Amino acid sequence: MVRILGIDPGSQRTGIGVIDVAADGRCTFVHCEALKLLDAADFPSRLGLLCEGLERVLDEWQPQQVAIETVFMDKSATSALKLGHARGAALATVVRRKLGVSEYAPRVIKQSLVGRGAADKTQVQHMVRLLLNLADGTKLQADAADALAVALTHAHMSATVMRTGVAINQLRRRGT
Amino acid sequence: MVRILGIDPGSQRTGIGVIDVAADGRCTFVHCEALKLLDAADFPSRLGLLCEGLERVLDEWQPQQVAIETVFMDKSATSALKLGHARGAALATVVRRKLGVSEYAPRVIKQSLVGRGAADKTQVQHMVRLLLNLADGTKLQADAADALAVALTHAHMSATVMRTGVAINQLRRRGT
Repeated sequence: MVRILGIDPGSQRTGIGVIDVAADGRCTFVHCEALKLLDAADFPSRLGLLCEGLERVLDEWQPQQVAIETVFMDKSATSALKLGHARGAALATVVRRKLGVSEYAPRVIKQSLVGRGAADKTQVQHMVRLLLNLADGTKLQADAADALAVALTHAHMSATVMRTGVAINQLRRRGT
Repeated sequence: MVRILGIDPGSQRTGIGVIDVAADGRCTFVHCEALKLLDAADFPSRLGLLCEGLERVLDEWQPQQVAIETVFMDKSATSALKLGHARGAALATVVRRKLGVSEYAPRVIKQSLVGRGAADKTQVQHMVRLLLNLADGTKLQADAADALAVALTHAHMSATVMRTGVAINQLRRRGT
Protein backbone atom coordinates (compact mmCIF):
# COMPACT_ATOMS: atom_id res chain seq x y z
CA MET A 1 0.00 0.00 0.00
CA VAL A 2 1.19 3.49 -0.85
CA ARG A 3 -0.17 6.69 0.66
CA ILE A 4 -0.27 9.66 -1.73
CA LEU A 5 -0.75 13.32 -0.86
CA GLY A 6 -2.19 15.48 -3.63
CA ILE A 7 -1.82 19.27 -3.50
CA ASP A 8 -3.79 21.85 -5.48
CA PRO A 9 -1.84 24.98 -4.56
CA GLY A 10 -3.42 28.43 -4.47
CA SER A 11 -2.68 31.65 -2.61
CA GLN A 12 -6.31 32.03 -1.45
CA ARG A 13 -7.08 28.36 -0.78
CA THR A 14 -4.83 25.32 -1.11
CA GLY A 15 -6.50 21.95 -1.61
CA ILE A 16 -5.16 18.88 0.17
CA GLY A 17 -6.15 15.28 -0.63
CA VAL A 18 -4.80 12.03 0.79
CA ILE A 19 -5.50 8.59 -0.69
CA ASP A 20 -4.20 5.06 -0.18
CA VAL A 21 -3.37 2.91 -3.20
CA ALA A 22 -3.47 -0.87 -2.74
CA ALA A 23 -1.15 -3.27 -4.59
CA ASP A 24 -3.97 -4.03 -7.06
CA GLY A 25 -4.29 -0.31 -7.86
CA ARG A 26 -7.52 0.24 -5.94
CA CYS A 27 -7.66 3.73 -4.37
CA THR A 28 -9.21 4.54 -0.99
CA PHE A 29 -10.15 7.97 0.36
CA VAL A 30 -8.18 8.94 3.49
CA HIS A 31 -8.55 12.70 4.03
CA CYS A 32 -9.20 15.97 2.28
CA GLU A 33 -9.45 19.62 3.23
CA ALA A 34 -8.95 23.13 1.88
CA LEU A 35 -6.47 25.37 3.69
CA LYS A 36 -8.09 28.81 3.87
CA LEU A 37 -5.38 31.44 3.55
CA LEU A 38 -7.33 34.69 3.10
CA ASP A 39 -7.59 35.34 6.85
CA ALA A 40 -3.84 36.06 7.00
CA ALA A 41 -2.77 39.66 7.65
CA ASP A 42 -0.75 39.94 4.42
CA PHE A 43 0.49 37.91 1.46
CA PRO A 44 3.69 36.55 3.09
CA SER A 45 1.60 35.42 6.10
CA ARG A 46 -0.67 33.47 3.72
CA LEU A 47 2.38 31.49 2.61
CA GLY A 48 3.24 30.91 6.27
CA LEU A 49 -0.29 29.54 6.89
CA LEU A 50 0.03 27.33 3.81
CA CYS A 51 3.29 25.78 5.10
CA GLU A 52 1.93 25.33 8.62
CA GLY A 53 -1.18 23.58 7.30
CA LEU A 54 0.84 21.40 4.96
CA GLU A 55 3.26 20.38 7.72
CA ARG A 56 0.32 19.48 9.97
CA VAL A 57 -1.09 17.24 7.22
CA LEU A 58 2.35 15.65 6.56
CA ASP A 59 2.72 14.94 10.30
CA GLU A 60 -0.76 13.55 10.71
CA TRP A 61 -1.13 11.43 7.57
CA GLN A 62 2.51 10.56 6.77
CA PRO A 63 2.19 10.25 2.97
CA GLN A 64 4.99 8.44 1.11
CA GLN A 65 4.55 10.21 -2.22
CA VAL A 66 3.40 13.69 -3.19
CA ALA A 67 1.74 14.93 -6.39
CA ILE A 68 1.07 18.56 -7.26
CA GLU A 69 -0.66 20.44 -10.08
CA THR A 70 1.48 22.54 -12.41
CA VAL A 71 0.46 26.10 -13.23
CA PHE A 72 -1.93 26.66 -16.10
CA MET A 73 -0.09 29.43 -17.96
CA ASP A 74 -3.16 30.96 -19.60
CA LYS A 75 -3.81 32.77 -16.35
CA SER A 76 -2.80 36.43 -16.15
CA ALA A 77 0.83 37.12 -15.29
CA THR A 78 -0.22 38.49 -11.88
CA SER A 79 -2.26 35.46 -10.88
CA ALA A 80 0.41 33.09 -12.27
CA LEU A 81 2.93 34.91 -10.08
CA LYS A 82 0.78 34.58 -6.94
CA LEU A 83 0.18 30.93 -7.73
CA GLY A 84 3.94 30.52 -8.24
CA HIS A 85 4.52 31.83 -4.70
CA ALA A 86 2.04 29.32 -3.26
CA ARG A 87 3.51 26.44 -5.28
CA GLY A 88 7.04 27.45 -4.27
CA ALA A 89 6.12 27.50 -0.57
CA ALA A 90 4.36 24.11 -0.87
CA LEU A 91 7.17 22.46 -2.88
CA ALA A 92 9.83 23.73 -0.48
CA THR A 93 7.90 22.31 2.50
CA VAL A 94 7.58 18.89 0.84
CA VAL A 95 11.17 18.75 -0.43
CA ARG A 96 12.53 19.65 3.02
CA ARG A 97 10.91 16.40 4.25
CA LYS A 98 12.87 14.44 1.61
CA LEU A 99 9.65 13.39 -0.11
CA GLY A 100 9.62 12.99 -3.89
CA VAL A 101 7.22 15.26 -5.78
CA SER A 102 5.55 14.47 -9.10
CA GLU A 103 4.04 17.31 -11.10
CA TYR A 104 1.02 17.01 -13.38
CA ALA A 105 -0.49 19.57 -15.76
CA PRO A 106 -4.27 20.23 -15.36
CA ARG A 107 -4.79 18.76 -18.84
CA VAL A 108 -3.02 15.52 -17.90
CA ILE A 109 -5.15 15.23 -14.74
CA LYS A 110 -8.38 15.66 -16.74
CA GLN A 111 -7.19 13.20 -19.39
CA SER A 112 -6.27 10.65 -16.74
CA LEU A 113 -9.56 10.89 -14.81
CA VAL A 114 -12.17 11.67 -17.45
CA GLY A 115 -10.39 10.60 -20.63
CA ARG A 116 -10.57 14.09 -22.13
CA GLY A 117 -8.03 16.89 -21.55
CA ALA A 118 -10.78 19.47 -21.94
CA ALA A 119 -13.17 17.98 -19.34
CA ASP A 120 -14.90 20.45 -17.01
CA LYS A 121 -14.61 20.65 -13.24
CA THR A 122 -17.90 18.91 -12.48
CA GLN A 123 -16.87 15.89 -14.57
CA VAL A 124 -13.56 15.68 -12.71
CA GLN A 125 -15.35 15.92 -9.35
CA HIS A 126 -17.82 13.25 -10.45
CA MET A 127 -14.94 10.88 -11.29
CA VAL A 128 -13.18 11.65 -7.99
CA ARG A 129 -16.36 10.59 -6.14
CA LEU A 130 -16.75 7.49 -8.29
CA LEU A 131 -13.13 6.32 -8.05
CA LEU A 132 -12.99 6.89 -4.29
CA ASN A 133 -16.43 5.44 -3.72
CA LEU A 134 -17.73 8.60 -2.03
CA ALA A 135 -21.48 8.92 -1.59
CA ASP A 136 -23.10 11.63 -3.73
CA GLY A 137 -24.12 13.49 -0.58
CA THR A 138 -20.53 13.80 0.69
CA LYS A 139 -19.51 17.45 0.90
CA LEU A 140 -16.44 17.89 -1.28
CA GLN A 141 -14.88 21.35 -1.40
CA ALA A 142 -13.74 22.22 -4.96
CA ASP A 143 -10.02 22.70 -4.12
CA ALA A 144 -9.98 19.55 -1.98
CA ALA A 145 -11.54 17.62 -4.89
CA ASP A 146 -8.82 18.94 -7.23
CA ALA A 147 -6.18 17.78 -4.76
CA LEU A 148 -7.73 14.30 -4.67
CA ALA A 149 -7.77 14.38 -8.50
CA VAL A 150 -4.02 15.00 -8.73
CA ALA A 151 -3.38 12.23 -6.15
CA LEU A 152 -5.54 9.83 -8.23
CA THR A 153 -3.69 10.86 -11.40
CA HIS A 154 -0.39 10.02 -9.74
CA ALA A 155 -1.77 6.63 -8.66
CA HIS A 156 -2.91 5.88 -12.24
CA MET A 157 0.32 7.11 -13.83
CA SER A 158 2.49 5.09 -11.45
CA ALA A 159 0.40 1.96 -12.15
CA THR A 160 0.67 2.54 -15.92
CA VAL A 161 4.42 2.97 -15.63
CA MET A 162 4.76 -0.23 -13.65
CA ARG A 163 2.68 -2.07 -16.24
CA THR A 164 4.32 -0.73 -19.36
CA GLY A 165 7.81 0.00 -18.14
CA VAL A 166 7.67 3.45 -19.69
CA ALA A 167 9.68 5.96 -17.71
CA ILE A 168 7.28 8.02 -15.63
CA ASN A 169 9.15 11.17 -16.52
CA GLN A 170 7.97 10.89 -20.09
CA LEU A 171 4.35 10.84 -18.98
CA ARG A 172 4.56 13.81 -16.71
CA ARG A 173 4.36 17.34 -17.91
CA ARG A 174 6.89 19.33 -15.96
CA GLY A 175 5.49 22.82 -16.28
CA THR A 176 8.01 24.56 -14.04
CA MET B 1 21.29 48.54 16.60
CA VAL B 2 19.11 46.60 14.17
CA ARG B 3 20.30 43.70 12.03
CA ILE B 4 18.65 43.49 8.59
CA LEU B 5 18.67 40.57 6.19
CA GLY B 6 18.19 41.45 2.53
CA ILE B 7 17.10 38.77 0.05
CA ASP B 8 17.31 38.94 -3.74
CA PRO B 9 15.39 35.79 -4.64
CA GLY B 10 16.05 33.79 -7.79
CA SER B 11 15.56 30.18 -8.81
CA GLN B 12 19.13 29.87 -10.13
CA ARG B 13 20.90 31.98 -7.50
CA THR B 14 19.48 33.73 -4.45
CA GLY B 15 21.42 36.67 -3.05
CA ILE B 16 21.75 37.13 0.71
CA GLY B 17 23.02 40.28 2.42
CA VAL B 18 23.20 41.10 6.13
CA ILE B 19 23.86 44.59 7.52
CA ASP B 20 23.73 46.27 10.92
CA VAL B 21 22.09 49.67 11.29
CA ALA B 22 23.20 51.84 14.19
CA ALA B 23 20.87 54.25 16.03
CA ASP B 24 22.33 57.17 14.00
CA GLY B 25 21.43 55.34 10.76
CA ARG B 26 24.98 54.30 9.88
CA CYS B 27 25.07 50.91 8.13
CA THR B 28 27.79 48.28 8.58
CA PHE B 29 28.48 45.26 6.39
CA VAL B 30 28.02 41.93 8.22
CA HIS B 31 27.78 39.15 5.63
CA CYS B 32 26.84 38.41 2.04
CA GLU B 33 26.68 35.36 -0.20
CA ALA B 34 24.87 33.92 -3.21
CA LEU B 35 23.08 30.60 -2.73
CA LYS B 36 23.82 28.56 -5.86
CA LEU B 37 20.75 26.46 -6.70
CA LEU B 38 21.54 25.08 -10.16
CA ASP B 39 23.33 21.99 -8.79
CA ALA B 40 20.00 20.59 -7.52
CA ALA B 41 18.59 17.52 -9.29
CA ASP B 42 15.32 19.24 -10.25
CA PHE B 43 13.33 22.43 -9.76
CA PRO B 44 11.62 21.44 -6.46
CA SER B 45 15.05 20.49 -5.03
CA ARG B 46 16.33 23.97 -5.91
CA LEU B 47 13.62 25.42 -3.66
CA GLY B 48 14.70 22.98 -0.95
CA LEU B 49 18.31 24.19 -1.26
CA LEU B 50 17.10 27.81 -1.11
CA CYS B 51 15.23 27.18 2.18
CA GLU B 52 18.12 25.24 3.69
CA GLY B 53 20.57 28.01 2.85
CA LEU B 54 18.23 30.70 4.13
CA GLU B 55 17.62 28.85 7.40
CA ARG B 56 21.39 28.46 7.88
CA VAL B 57 21.82 32.24 7.42
CA LEU B 58 18.90 33.00 9.79
CA ASP B 59 20.44 30.69 12.43
CA GLU B 60 23.94 32.06 12.04
CA TRP B 61 23.27 35.81 11.76
CA GLN B 62 19.96 36.16 13.63
CA PRO B 63 18.55 39.18 11.74
CA GLN B 64 15.68 41.10 13.38
CA GLN B 65 14.15 42.42 10.15
CA VAL B 66 13.96 41.09 6.62
CA ALA B 67 13.65 42.93 3.30
CA ILE B 68 13.05 41.32 -0.09
CA GLU B 69 12.82 42.51 -3.70
CA THR B 70 9.46 42.31 -5.45
CA VAL B 71 9.21 40.77 -8.90
CA PHE B 72 9.79 43.03 -11.88
CA MET B 73 6.76 42.12 -14.01
CA ASP B 74 8.32 43.00 -17.37
CA LYS B 75 9.97 39.59 -17.29
CA SER B 76 8.41 36.82 -19.35
CA ALA B 77 5.52 34.95 -17.71
CA THR B 78 7.69 31.83 -17.43
CA SER B 79 10.58 33.53 -15.66
CA ALA B 80 8.16 35.51 -13.45
CA LEU B 81 6.58 32.20 -12.47
CA LYS B 82 9.96 30.60 -11.60
CA LEU B 83 10.91 33.71 -9.65
CA GLY B 84 7.52 33.52 -7.90
CA HIS B 85 8.35 29.99 -6.73
CA ALA B 86 11.70 31.14 -5.32
CA ARG B 87 10.13 34.18 -3.60
CA GLY B 88 7.34 32.01 -2.20
CA ALA B 89 9.81 29.53 -0.72
CA ALA B 90 11.93 32.35 0.76
CA LEU B 91 8.93 34.27 2.18
CA ALA B 92 7.48 31.13 3.75
CA THR B 93 10.81 30.34 5.43
CA VAL B 94 11.07 33.85 6.88
CA VAL B 95 7.42 34.08 7.98
CA ARG B 96 7.63 30.71 9.73
CA ARG B 97 10.30 32.31 11.97
CA LYS B 98 7.82 35.07 12.90
CA LEU B 99 10.05 37.70 11.29
CA GLY B 100 8.43 40.71 9.63
CA VAL B 101 9.13 41.08 5.90
CA SER B 102 9.20 44.35 3.97
CA GLU B 103 8.98 44.25 0.19
CA TYR B 104 10.58 46.76 -2.17
CA ALA B 105 10.25 47.11 -5.94
CA PRO B 106 13.54 47.21 -7.94
CA ARG B 107 12.71 50.82 -8.93
CA VAL B 108 12.33 51.88 -5.30
CA ILE B 109 15.67 50.25 -4.42
CA LYS B 110 17.45 52.12 -7.23
CA GLN B 111 15.74 55.38 -6.31
CA SER B 112 16.71 54.94 -2.67
CA LEU B 113 20.37 54.13 -3.35
CA VAL B 114 21.25 56.08 -6.48
CA GLY B 115 18.49 58.69 -6.55
CA ARG B 116 17.20 57.51 -9.92
CA GLY B 117 14.68 54.70 -10.47
CA ALA B 118 16.31 53.88 -13.80
CA ALA B 119 19.88 53.53 -12.47
CA ASP B 120 21.91 50.60 -13.84
CA LYS B 121 23.33 47.67 -11.87
CA THR B 122 26.91 49.01 -11.73
CA GLN B 123 25.71 52.28 -10.17
CA VAL B 124 23.76 50.34 -7.53
CA GLN B 125 26.78 48.16 -6.78
CA HIS B 126 28.98 51.25 -6.56
CA MET B 127 26.62 52.79 -3.97
CA VAL B 128 26.46 49.51 -2.01
CA ARG B 129 30.28 49.55 -1.74
CA LEU B 130 30.31 53.23 -0.80
CA LEU B 131 27.54 53.04 1.83
CA LEU B 132 29.02 49.93 3.44
CA ASN B 133 32.58 51.23 3.20
CA LEU B 134 33.76 48.21 1.20
CA ALA B 135 37.13 48.53 -0.52
CA ASP B 136 36.99 48.62 -4.33
CA GLY B 137 38.92 45.35 -4.49
CA THR B 138 36.33 43.44 -2.41
CA LYS B 139 34.74 40.67 -4.47
CA LEU B 140 30.99 41.28 -4.51
CA GLN B 141 28.85 38.75 -6.35
CA ALA B 142 26.04 40.49 -8.29
CA ASP B 143 23.11 38.76 -6.51
CA ALA B 144 24.75 39.27 -3.10
CA ALA B 145 25.18 42.98 -3.95
CA ASP B 146 21.47 43.22 -4.87
CA ALA B 147 20.58 41.61 -1.53
CA LEU B 148 22.71 44.18 0.31
CA ALA B 149 20.99 46.89 -1.75
CA VAL B 150 17.50 45.84 -0.60
CA ALA B 151 18.73 45.66 3.02
CA LEU B 152 20.15 49.21 2.69
CA THR B 153 16.89 50.42 1.14
CA HIS B 154 14.98 49.04 4.12
CA ALA B 155 17.39 50.81 6.49
CA HIS B 156 16.89 54.12 4.64
CA MET B 157 13.11 53.75 4.40
CA SER B 158 12.78 52.89 8.09
CA ALA B 159 14.92 55.91 9.02
CA THR B 160 12.83 58.17 6.77
CA VAL B 161 9.63 56.89 8.31
CA MET B 162 10.93 57.47 11.81
CA ARG B 163 11.93 61.00 10.86
CA THR B 164 8.78 62.01 9.06
CA GLY B 165 6.19 59.87 10.77
CA VAL B 166 4.82 58.77 7.42
CA ALA B 167 3.44 55.22 7.49
CA ILE B 168 6.06 52.95 5.97
CA ASN B 169 3.35 51.13 4.03
CA GLN B 170 2.83 54.19 1.88
CA LEU B 171 6.49 54.20 0.90
CA ARG B 172 6.69 50.57 0.02
CA ARG B 173 5.57 49.17 -3.26
CA ARG B 174 3.87 45.89 -2.56
CA GLY B 175 4.20 44.16 -5.89
CA THR B 176 2.74 40.81 -4.82
